[in-house]
Amino acid sequence: MELSTTFRKMETLIRRLQDQICDGLEAFEPIQKFQQDIWKREQGGGGWTRILSGGKTFEKAGVNISSIHGEMTTELAAQLRVEEGFFGACGLSLVVHPNSPKVPTIHMNVRYFETNEGRSWFGGGADLTPYYPYPKDFKEFHQTLQQTCNAVIPSSYQKFKETCDQYFTIKHRSEMRGIGGIFFDNLAGTEAKHADLVKSVVESFLPAYTPIVERRKDESFSEVDKIFQKIRRGRYVEFNLIYDRGTLFGLRSGGRIESIFMSLPPEVEFHYNWQPESGSPQEEMLSYYQPYDWING
Amino acid sequence: MELSTTFRKMETLIRRLQDQICDGLEAFEPIQKFQQDIWKREQGGGGWTRILSGGKTFEKAGVNISSIHGEMTTELAAQLRVEEGFFGACGLSLVVHPNSPKVPTIHMNVRYFETNEGRSWFGGGADLTPYYPYPKDFKEFHQTLQQTCNAVIPSSYQKFKETCDQYFTIKHRSEMRGIGGIFFDNLAGTEAKHADLVKSVVESFLPAYTPIVERRKDESFSEVDKIFQKIRRGRYVEFNLIYDRGTLFGLRSGGRIESIFMSLPPEVEFHYNWQPESGSPQEEMLSYYQPYDWING
Repeated sequence: MELSTTFRKMETLIRRLQDQICDGLEAFEPIQKFQQDIWKREQGGGGWTRILSGGKTFEKAGVNISSIHGEMTTELAAQLRVEEGFFGACGLSLVVHPNSPKVPTIHMNVRYFETNEGRSWFGGGADLTPYYPYPKDFKEFHQTLQQTCNAVIPSSYQKFKETCDQYFTIKHRSEMRGIGGIFFDNLAGTEAKHADLVKSVVESFLPAYTPIVERRKDESFSEVDKIFQKIRRGRYVEFNLIYDRGTLFGLRSGGRIESIFMSLPPEVEFHYNWQPESGSPQEEMLSYYQPYDWING
Repeated sequence: MELSTTFRKMETLIRRLQDQICDGLEAFEPIQKFQQDIWKREQGGGGWTRILSGGKTFEKAGVNISSIHGEMTTELAAQLRVEEGFFGACGLSLVVHPNSPKVPTIHMNVRYFETNEGRSWFGGGADLTPYYPYPKDFKEFHQTLQQTCNAVIPSSYQKFKETCDQYFTIKHRSEMRGIGGIFFDNLAGTEAKHADLVKSVVESFLPAYTPIVERRKDESFSEVDKIFQKIRRGRYVEFNLIYDRGTLFGLRSGGRIESIFMSLPPEVEFHYNWQPESGSPQEEMLSYYQPYDWING
């Protein structure tokens, strides 16, 4: 079996964007740099995992790409609802956990999947997990994503935003892990506009995120702000381990465990029945972890 | 529908043992006491959640009992592989996370379930999650469980120990979360010896655990010991959120989220690709997270 031209193009794109994004994040770091681990998957393909740990701005950042292929396991075929057979999957996945609770955690992911039956699709998304109530930042983030999506596929943002609100919900708590963003899946791999969308979304990462980092990274914060960040990171863990399809796909497709779990926050706390003080920024922030139209209010 | 006499007896037993265990743990705490939250389940029943936080010896300890009943949801019936209908479930679940990495985390759980079709069963288990290599402690712990189980049901320990080794395995890492213990499920609710077993297992908690706490609680430890504890607590989180049937049962049966997640460790770290130093206690400890005959070596 051969991987398609679309697959190879996607692979080239994400390798280039991995470099670009790592450079953009390293600009905030006087000393720490991304370290790369290259891994091979026994059944075919592998990945380039890049991690920056213990930075001045970023406590843990991972910008990973993987490109795997081979025969599907029965379990994987069942999850994807396709026939067993040869498949190829490649994607870029990034998660940034800053030190400061004033700077949000961000996640972005794009992926392409194809089977030897000729089925292929793109997926992707980005979502922001802030720990401090700066509605101005949240609106800006959504505006950048809106412009990005709608420029490639008119009016697409609204649907992707609603899908994101649903996807990143921690169902047992009826709350989102953050303030949303965009999420799309099963976009036909044969349509050029979908490849363009994926490219534009990844290219929007630095413009969507770095202005917020720049604005907030040197702000002071309190001990409660920090505890709240660690508690909300606990919710991030709950979501990723219980609901995230990307994590489950990684575990089921024989991906590299350390690369899959780079998304988990570095320091996390689980408190019993923690409640915010009345009138505190934390109480305000908690009210924002629900679907909301950040652009029109 | 009525709950059976067996159900009511189990409820009485676990309420008494909750008091006894909380007293036994509080003996290590000069100041902190267990705080109780009583919760009601909308569809029937509720629970008594007791949490001790920020103690001298115990960073977070939860000793919870719950007794719920009502109509099963389709999802719950599917998980349990029974017909939909009226059910009753009660149990005691405890998790203790000590401050010191020299003192192991412990978990114990017993439960009883019955349906209006006349089906009923007991389940339970206990497992130890140490962070420092003291094989003497691990052997003692298993010996106490062996004596407890075999005194009620001859030769039962061996099977329960093997089931535990399988159950508490983090499959994606091919390692156990700790050094095992015992685990049993689907023991016919109609047999008196199974009720006796459950009683004896819970009564063995203090004799199995407190001698280890007493011996290790005041030992000094290094920064690496502490980091290793937090990293292994991360594996505990991985297990509980991805594999633990008790957690999933709680989420699916409309249990109280804060009571279910009291099992999660208070402070946790997720490091990328952490490796122990060669010849370190951590390297030795890692070799013990595999099935092993602790009694006969």
